[in-house]
Amino acid sequence: MLNEKVVNIMLGGPKELIPEMAINQRQHEIWIGVDHGALTLLAQQIMPQVVVGDYDSLTTNERQRLEQQVHDVRYAKPEKDFTDSQMGVLTAFADLKATQVNIYGATGGRIDHLLVNLFMMTDPKFQQWLQQVAIIDRFNQVTFYAPGNYQLPYCADYRYLAFANLTPVKNLTLCQVKYELTDFSAENPVSWSSNEFIKDQAAKFNFTAGIIAVILSRD
Amino acid sequence: MLNEKVVNIMLGGPKELIPEMAINQRQHEIWIGVDHGALTLLAQQIMPQVVVGDYDSLTTNERQRLEQQVHDVRYAKPEKDFTDSQMGVLTAFADLKATQVNIYGATGGRIDHLLVNLFMMTDPKFQQWLQQVAIIDRFNQVTFYAPGNYQLPYCADYRYLAFANLTPVKNLTLCQVKYELTDFSAENPVSWSSNEFIKDQAAKFNFTAGIIAVILSRD
Repeated sequence: MLNEKVVNIMLGGPKELIPEMAINQRQHEIWIGVDHGALTLLAQQIMPQVVVGDYDSLTTNERQRLEQQVHDVRYAKPEKDFTDSQMGVLTAFADLKATQVNIYGATGGRIDHLLVNLFMMTDPKFQQWLQQVAIIDRFNQVTFYAPGNYQLPYCADYRYLAFANLTPVKNLTLCQVKYELTDFSAENPVSWSSNEFIKDQAAKFNFTAGIIAVILSRD
Repeated sequence: MLNEKVVNIMLGGPKELIPEMAINQRQHEIWIGVDHGALTLLAQQIMPQVVVGDYDSLTTNERQRLEQQVHDVRYAKPEKDFTDSQMGVLTAFADLKATQVNIYGATGGRIDHLLVNLFMMTDPKFQQWLQQVAIIDRFNQVTFYAPGNYQLPYCADYRYLAFANLTPVKNLTLCQVKYELTDFSAENPVSWSSNEFIKDQAAKFNFTAGIIAVILSRD
């Protein structure tokens, strides 16, 4: 894409699930730190361009360090229209004009937080950026799709390939994968897990209504 | 409940997230081991009544140990109508006549697996047992609700209380909680995270359509 602009977001999830090598390779790209994720970045010698949060979980010392080191510190109110992670994503797209957003620190620990992050892109206010977001941790990479016809390039880095309809879905069809599926429709969410690429082949899928998360994963 | 029968299920999720103390307290209850979870149980000196799985990820030695030690070993085909965790839940309710099922080892690691477990109770084939299942790990306890009017007893063990509509929802109202909500309806899933009980008070919620997961959690 012309004028591609990648923005990385670090949320406050547990460190064990953050892929350190991938982070270090992106050290000189643009970063947003969200709440406790801002400290995770500073600990990795990464200077966030913006930090966002209510910083409730930070000590006075940690807060001061943030204010001294980061140029653009934004404060969110505890009772607000958007969660901290939503604020981070809005900042990336609306303010920094990102074309691609990678989100780290979104998984592990509290399941309510994980679901905020996984469900965020199904919100009508975020759907315009649906296909420009990836949630990445040590074991998983999650991307999101609106109705259409897709080819996923073969990816040797992950053993498993899963398709989860996060909303009601119509006519989901999976081709050129280990377990094919034809015209699946349902009102309830389903995670079609543990599927696999066929070696060196692109996976194909299409559907006519709903939102699908594609989850690449490894044990 | 008269004739209450608790059945516990151990899935194959990472050990770090399994609440060891809670498991040990239930050591003498009925257990089902699912795939690699069967070995987790044996390692904890817990003898499962039934084990279910395709055991693909087990070594020949591990498989033999299972077959020697466990009386009822059931084999699932890799291409099958139900996932291993669904087979475990079906076995608990349909065969063992459970009235309450606690699921451990359902979280962490692969997100596609977590979503299989979180979404399972929204499947029409499982909805009859919706309110008889809890998913439990070190940081979270998840239960599921059909449309209705509910009171959740105050619980000091967890700081946070979240409500996630896993399906489209109508008229979700939250009362007697830190952040109230009135008549929320949406087509997309939303995780209303980081809410809290009011000290010593039951939380109240009601809704007229959809399925809600209630997530108690701590950092």
